[in-house]
Amino acid sequence: MNDVIFETVISTVAADGTPHVAPMGVRYRGAEVILMPFKPSTTLANIVADAHAVLNIVTDTRVFAGSVTGRRTWQLQPAERIAGVRLECALNHVELALAELRDDPQRPVLRMARVFEASHAPYIGFNRAQAAVIEAAILASRLHLLPRERIEREIAALEIVVAKTAGPNEQTAWDWLKTTIESHFGAIETTAS
Amino acid sequence: MNDVIFETVISTVAADGTPHVAPMGVRYRGAEVILMPFKPSTTLANIVADAHAVLNIVTDTRVFAGSVTGRRTWQLQPAERIAGVRLECALNHVELALAELRDDPQRPVLRMARVFEASHAPYIGFNRAQAAVIEAAILASRLHLLPRERIEREIAALEIVVAKTAGPNEQTAWDWLKTTIESHFGAIETTAS
Repeated sequence: MNDVIFETVISTVAADGTPHVAPMGVRYRGAEVILMPFKPSTTLANIVADAHAVLNIVTDTRVFAGSVTGRRTWQLQPAERIAGVRLECALNHVELALAELRDDPQRPVLRMARVFEASHAPYIGFNRAQAAVIEAAILASRLHLLPRERIEREIAALEIVVAKTAGPNEQTAWDWLKTTIESHFGAIETTAS
Repeated sequence: MNDVIFETVISTVAADGTPHVAPMGVRYRGAEVILMPFKPSTTLANIVADAHAVLNIVTDTRVFAGSVTGRRTWQLQPAERIAGVRLECALNHVELALAELRDDPQRPVLRMARVFEASHAPYIGFNRAQAAVIEAAILASRLHLLPRERIEREIAALEIVVAKTAGPNEQTAWDWLKTTIESHFGAIETTAS
């Protein structure tokens, strides 16, 4: 398998109609999109039940930062060809149907076929602050796994990039992550004292 | 001015017809694209002479890594509406005409108006390795300015991301940068011994 991983956002809908929006690293293989959600996963449960999902290509990093800081309510639009939703801020989206599910105790592999795709806004280039937010979101999702000193060092380096190149959305995303990281370590200090 | 900076590639043509391809951080202001090249700059000289340029939106990070490791020969296509060139690998490109040049001893400001734009390939999502290559390219362009210890620490952290998420193009770009950085520090050691 080609192991190039792209950070995207998958939107699914539960049996009761509740939408679920979750960042996910995906792989492309030919025309198919490969999802490998870690169990347990609402995205996985929804796809198993409904056999559909939407791949959202997003550069608004608030969606990535929000998902690790308790913010998952985003403007949605109905999908065109499936009973699903897409993110309104998606630059483009692909509506997907489950082609094959290879189950696994930890990380099943879902081969998803393209049903429909549409563009909504042009991609306008790399923004270093967006990449810094993605890295900080990954750090923020691993606060219990990584040494505090490493997290603080990496956040300090990323913050320089954010200060130089961020727009308002990146700054908001950064502030959410910073608050979450600081309150985590604040809590640790309180517990230790 | 909105200070959000996007990392793009500007292609220009000299009076003798020689194309010039250079990564540049640009700003968008309304419909205009703002360029602020540091002097001396072949891009600046070409725009002053010809009043045109092409903005290339590129995710093939070999172009960024190549520019700091002595590789500037890329597949080009003629522009549509101006006497210029675009990168064949551009996801999209914008043909630009100079609207205003505010000169400055170090960093003039060029307001560029859009003449034409076209899409060539869809954007398929963030790739962390691409962002890592951009950061490493910036480090590689500052080898004489930054402490060796900081560069080595940051390169080691970025390399983990590349190993996890790179495709062949990102791996090639990374290898070019790594070789350049190692030969710089190798040269320093040789000089010091």
